[in-house]
Amino acid sequence: MSETQTWTRKDFLSTADLNGEELEILFSMASSFKQTLGRTQKKLPSLRGRTIVNLFMEPSTRTRVAFEIAGKRLSADTITVTGDASSLVKGETLRDTARNIVALNADILVIRHSAAGSPYYLSRIIDIPVINAGDGSHEHPTQALLDCFTLREKWGADFSGKKVTILGDILFSRVARSNIWLLQKLGAHVTLAGPATLVPSRFREFGVEVSHNLRDALADADAVMLLRIQHERQTSTHFPSIGEYTSMFGLNTLRAAWLKPGAIIMHPGPINRGVEIDSKLADSENSVILQQVTNGIVCRMAVLLLCASAAAPRLEDAAI
Amino acid sequence: MSETQTWTRKDFLSTADLNGEELEILFSMASSFKQTLGRTQKKLPSLRGRTIVNLFMEPSTRTRVAFEIAGKRLSADTITVTGDASSLVKGETLRDTARNIVALNADILVIRHSAAGSPYYLSRIIDIPVINAGDGSHEHPTQALLDCFTLREKWGADFSGKKVTILGDILFSRVARSNIWLLQKLGAHVTLAGPATLVPSRFREFGVEVSHNLRDALADADAVMLLRIQHERQTSTHFPSIGEYTSMFGLNTLRAAWLKPGAIIMHPGPINRGVEIDSKLADSENSVILQQVTNGIVCRMAVLLLCASAAAPRLEDAAI
Amino acid sequence: MSETQTWTRKDFLSTADLNGEELEILFSMASSFKQTLGRTQKKLPSLRGRTIVNLFMEPSTRTRVAFEIAGKRLSADTITVTGDASSLVKGETLRDTARNIVALNADILVIRHSAAGSPYYLSRIIDIPVINAGDGSHEHPTQALLDCFTLREKWGADFSGKKVTILGDILFSRVARSNIWLLQKLGAHVTLAGPATLVPSRFREFGVEVSHNLRDALADADAVMLLRIQHERQTSTHFPSIGEYTSMFGLNTLRAAWLKPGAIIMHPGPINRGVEIDSKLADSENSVILQQVTNGIVCRMAVLLLCASAAAPRLEDAAI
Repeated sequence: MSETQTWTRKDFLSTADLNGEELEILFSMASSFKQTLGRTQKKLPSLRGRTIVNLFMEPSTRTRVAFEIAGKRLSADTITVTGDASSLVKGETLRDTARNIVALNADILVIRHSAAGSPYYLSRIIDIPVINAGDGSHEHPTQALLDCFTLREKWGADFSGKKVTILGDILFSRVARSNIWLLQKLGAHVTLAGPATLVPSRFREFGVEVSHNLRDALADADAVMLLRIQHERQTSTHFPSIGEYTSMFGLNTLRAAWLKPGAIIMHPGPINRGVEIDSKLADSENSVILQQVTNGIVCRMAVLLLCASAAAPRLEDAAI
Repeated sequence: MSETQTWTRKDFLSTADLNGEELEILFSMASSFKQTLGRTQKKLPSLRGRTIVNLFMEPSTRTRVAFEIAGKRLSADTITVTGDASSLVKGETLRDTARNIVALNADILVIRHSAAGSPYYLSRIIDIPVINAGDGSHEHPTQALLDCFTLREKWGADFSGKKVTILGDILFSRVARSNIWLLQKLGAHVTLAGPATLVPSRFREFGVEVSHNLRDALADADAVMLLRIQHERQTSTHFPSIGEYTSMFGLNTLRAAWLKPGAIIMHPGPINRGVEIDSKLADSENSVILQQVTNGIVCRMAVLLLCASAAAPRLEDAAI
Repeated sequence: MSETQTWTRKDFLSTADLNGEELEILFSMASSFKQTLGRTQKKLPSLRGRTIVNLFMEPSTRTRVAFEIAGKRLSADTITVTGDASSLVKGETLRDTARNIVALNADILVIRHSAAGSPYYLSRIIDIPVINAGDGSHEHPTQALLDCFTLREKWGADFSGKKVTILGDILFSRVARSNIWLLQKLGAHVTLAGPATLVPSRFREFGVEVSHNLRDALADADAVMLLRIQHERQTSTHFPSIGEYTSMFGLNTLRAAWLKPGAIIMHPGPINRGVEIDSKLADSENSVILQQVTNGIVCRMAVLLLCASAAAPRLEDAAI
């Protein structure tokens, strides 16, 4: 594909430094992959013979399965290593783990890790593509990519004049961070909303609006991205109880009426029905929650293929 | 294959509602798959490009591995998600989990779940095939299918006049339930045997005989299906000790002599040698325990392929 | 390949009984596989349609992943079963587990088990290849194979006149045992070194030197193989503390100077930097630690393919 020729990035670490041309390539490739999903024979031969190692050092099923399916659809072999039972990493430095994965002749490393910045660090050490599948509270760039791809299917390429409100636990959310960069790059105006303990004012530095008044935050929004409320957060001092969060910041039908008519409702899943979102809204016409899941496959296919293509010449020259 | 044209069932949930024609199709396809097992190249291209998600929300290795092998033999990609480490389902409703799996562009859902009826529920919600790999104490239809396929290899298609005794923990056994329906449909006479605490008389409603006298139960039986005794059941009030169970209801050589000469000995595995079955009997000529395992592969291949074929037109029309 | 015609061994259990011709076949096949690693399309069709079951009844990521990659590179389907969540083996004898795996129509069994000798036992019971991936403290033959393959890349086929020192926890090391047989067979002189509690003098029976004086042990060595120090061993009586082990037996720059100039430094991984090896040495020019990892893929590919080929005629004749 001609797209792969202009794409030179071997790693996918962040949404912060993607330029407009790169986004165009990503979205257009994801879009063409989406055409193939309805076929009976959905596999493309693009990465046949390549090995993708999915190293998930934090629990995750949803993202892991999406990456596994994306890799298999490109005909790659996928090997999943989870941190729990992993003697690969027992007492080993992260650098050694990564170099071992390269030595195992892997072609792509997809990594989820609790330490912010770890995928960056690895990308400078190893020559194969490093794909960030979530690093601590820092970034989750493929999630933001699929979110914006989903909005783009509704809005087209230009998000200018659109107001997107991200609602919930912003403080610890890598999804929020990655979306802030990407939405702004695409021209949208971003508002962060939620209780002050979870949405600190210092996020204004990122050029977004911060609001602790839900009515203001939702008013005239073209889309609202809900974040999952972590039940375990409840015992800490961030908010008193799930019930109180729901009563103050849960999205329900009354509050949804503040949004612009037809506004899009998004959630990275898994959703807590009746907590951060009312069950009816999750299933409403305006909800794109399940489209997000499907788009996660095709966006990750695009990321895997483009980065593999950028790295391939190196692979072929490599003397092992 | 022409068989796929007359098979219209997208889900495989129970043995209770299978009709004779469907059974014929299943058994004949499983039989033809069995011819391929001895080949070096055993893979068939039938489900190439399809993705099977095996969602096992109760521990299982045996059934899970059999479904994985069956899927791979049909050239499908298989993704296994186990309930334990599964954030896919963290706080999520089962309905949402299933809809997410569809949104991940999966083509078939194989599910084991502790809640009786859950596969039925899902089959009405989602359009892709739902295969019941065991739901609580309710049904385990592919196990019954492989059991009857194994008997059919010995007896031919007509089981009338045959007496099959199911011995052990009937009360909590999904294997027993699925076999009761299927054996009767094929014409066999079914006797349930074991201690009264594990074999309640109310099972007579299902048209079977219930006997707490082992000699009567085994007399002139053409086949005996043993069920695994769960060690953990011992502490409850169902029976006093493993030793006592064995002395009262374990199948040993003396008791096996009560069976019809040449009677078939079956067990779904894993077997507890010396508990529910004497070691010598497990390895005897009349034991078909390992054939059952092999037949589990080909029967599941038939189920996967037939249900996928019934659902395929929908898949191809689907706009995603 | 012609190599497969002269290879008649269906199982790979030990390095003790391999003859020179077999080693030549293994090394030469591994070497030709190594040429393929740099390609974009690395898969070979050799085992297409075969199923490899990796039964890991002790925790392991490193060896398991290497076997998975090796199997996939030969186009086999790989199924991994780990002992922890494994109801395959719940209350079941090892013999029954193995016979079940054969009945599942698997073509190769790769097994790691805590009981020394268990792979031997299984190889006599079942007809499919049994590959020993580590049995207790007994043997880890594919590790020794990759170690010697790595040395052979440096030294050529003849190891005579070479001194190889194995340093560390010899007592419980299956890697040490497998290497002792193999290194001697290739002509090397082997010295075992470490504290007396971990390197008992009775190892002299194996024709090796035993030294508790590190200087003597390292003097003029052509290669040193370090073994991983198990942190959990520390609480037992084998050595007082990790710190003390490091100060007495850790390989550091001063001690490395006792080796022959250019001596090779090896470690089966994962390495504890600053414990059994100084960080600088692990990354030095003389370290082949990462080459060992890569060679583990190609050596295991050779083992899998050769054993499968030796067993294949049986497979094709088998009536199931």
